[in-house]
Amino acid sequence: MRHAVIMAGGAGTRLWPLSRVARPKQVLRLFGGESLLRHAYERIAGLLEPDAIYVITGSRYLPAVAEELPELPERNLLGEPQGRDTANAVGLAAAVLRQRDPDAVMGIFTADHIIMPIDRFRDALDLAYGVAEREANALVTLGVRPSSPHTGYGYVRRGAALAERVYGVEEFTEKPDLARATEYVAAGNYYWNSGMFTWRAATILDQLHKYLPKSYEGLSQIAVAWDTPQRQERLERVYPTLIKISIDFAVMERAEHVLVVEMDCQWVDVGSWTAFESLVSADADGNVNAASATLNLGSRGNILVSEDDHLIATIGVDDLVIVHSADATLICTRRDAQSIKELVARVRQQFGEKYV
Amino acid sequence: MRHAVIMAGGAGTRLWPLSRVARPKQVLRLFGGESLLRHAYERIAGLLEPDAIYVITGSRYLPAVAEELPELPERNLLGEPQGRDTANAVGLAAAVLRQRDPDAVMGIFTADHIIMPIDRFRDALDLAYGVAEREANALVTLGVRPSSPHTGYGYVRRGAALAERVYGVEEFTEKPDLARATEYVAAGNYYWNSGMFTWRAATILDQLHKYLPKSYEGLSQIAVAWDTPQRQERLERVYPTLIKISIDFAVMERAEHVLVVEMDCQWVDVGSWTAFESLVSADADGNVNAASATLNLGSRGNILVSEDDHLIATIGVDDLVIVHSADATLICTRRDAQSIKELVARVRQQFGEKYV
Repeated sequence: MRHAVIMAGGAGTRLWPLSRVARPKQVLRLFGGESLLRHAYERIAGLLEPDAIYVITGSRYLPAVAEELPELPERNLLGEPQGRDTANAVGLAAAVLRQRDPDAVMGIFTADHIIMPIDRFRDALDLAYGVAEREANALVTLGVRPSSPHTGYGYVRRGAALAERVYGVEEFTEKPDLARATEYVAAGNYYWNSGMFTWRAATILDQLHKYLPKSYEGLSQIAVAWDTPQRQERLERVYPTLIKISIDFAVMERAEHVLVVEMDCQWVDVGSWTAFESLVSADADGNVNAASATLNLGSRGNILVSEDDHLIATIGVDDLVIVHSADATLICTRRDAQSIKELVARVRQQFGEKYV
Repeated sequence: MRHAVIMAGGAGTRLWPLSRVARPKQVLRLFGGESLLRHAYERIAGLLEPDAIYVITGSRYLPAVAEELPELPERNLLGEPQGRDTANAVGLAAAVLRQRDPDAVMGIFTADHIIMPIDRFRDALDLAYGVAEREANALVTLGVRPSSPHTGYGYVRRGAALAERVYGVEEFTEKPDLARATEYVAAGNYYWNSGMFTWRAATILDQLHKYLPKSYEGLSQIAVAWDTPQRQERLERVYPTLIKISIDFAVMERAEHVLVVEMDCQWVDVGSWTAFESLVSADADGNVNAASATLNLGSRGNILVSEDDHLIATIGVDDLVIVHSADATLICTRRDAQSIKELVARVRQQFGEKYV
């Protein structure tokens, strides 16, 4: 049976002050009241029943996730006691799934992006599930046709075509510099590495057994205890001992039978406030009003964000990022949005955990 | 006996979004938790007992005033059903006071200013009460020695000295242009017109009888009913019919026996956010942090205001005014702070009464 696993970890410091230690960016209601997690769920819910959709996240985020996705059975919410990077998150989900359904085919999804249009995403996803079903040993990655020479993503170079929109993978690349990224886009045979995959649970576990045997061993121990009273004890004892490593480094860049399915969608990383200008239409003065109540008097090119009905009103300011949260407000220039991590570190230093 | 009347009307739109229709600027807790009204009260409380201190304000502000000054007996809080300018506010207070104490000597005070140092203020005030006690027919105005050619104040030209720091008044002037204000300051015989006065209640009522007979008549009718069950009916029937006019226009500029007592204090109008730089010391980067939690990273010359412990954090922004309130945030350039009235009108137009 087809399953989906949405990975929703990561605090998302660059989206402070809305994202917080106890409230990851995926549950923020940024776009007309819909969170990124909700978007991710609904994109998949068109193909799968709620029973088949899982979320894996930090244990402390489970209540927020459950509130955001009340459709999901509690048993489909997998909590990690601490983050051990994507190889272990993927492995834990695969081990639990295989325990419950030995023939499970699974998709791995992130909740950091806005993807449009949804029907093309679902087409590509359906295709990728089909490939994983037919090719028992394949690891399938979803590759996004690049719309710009983005230097913040890794790229995948495709090889021979196996079917329409299905290729072998020749190489995963690191994040390139601009010159190289421009070459990649011009060449036409590179995709953005989306971090979304499909495979059989048994297949990815075999690969982990091969390339990351200690994790495989630990995750298997946790999985047999998962649907028993020993889960928590086992999880808290074993999981923190696993080595932090990404699924790309641990498996994808080393495995043999890796395929890529082309996804021709707009794919926007909501990793920083400046990403909002790709997501929300600006008004006539170039202000991006991602808040329910804003008023700009002679102000241009600002990004205004609030989750609730708090009013943000400006006069004569240009090119700022202004974000309201219940207990903190950020005002910075667009070009300084990259310094938010540093700001948050300073906030922690000065005020402790109160505002972080 | 000496009494004091603090006038605390006026919404103070230029201090939006902290000042609101139902919450005038005088009760805002802007400086270390003390409101302007509290400051005004405590300046006077060094000279008079709480029983002798009155506040006159709009009826809708009475609960906020009572909360801010719990020391005052309820009978000392005088509510106007609507604003009829200072001639009628002063006249109403005088009529009620004379009703209660025919020999009342009263001081009139505003709550819009920070005045320092307090002991010099009290010296001048004590002197002004003494003059009003000795000179039964005198209207005494407190004149502030100008520290700059401020074009936002009216000026008082003094005449012959009657005693140390006590002079006759030759003329009240309109707000001058800068050239004229500079002349006034250089001349040395001009004071800022503070809007603070002392006189006998009977004396100011005589003057109102002479120059504003309809108000005198109406206020007398209200006063006789004040400490009876008819107060509210009488007040609501008569007060709105009175002509709106200031005590300066109606009486001070026309009366004969007007004196000025010199007050040598720092006297800062807290009428706009930019006034805060005269009141709160800036940090090393020139940021005025009038909020309990602020953090500025590479930002200079900003004014940050919040009443509560909401954090305001900035990166790389200069010369802004940033004000947080529970349901609205203002971000504007310093030079645009004068457009706040226009902004508030636009807010009302777009969102109704919700944020004003």
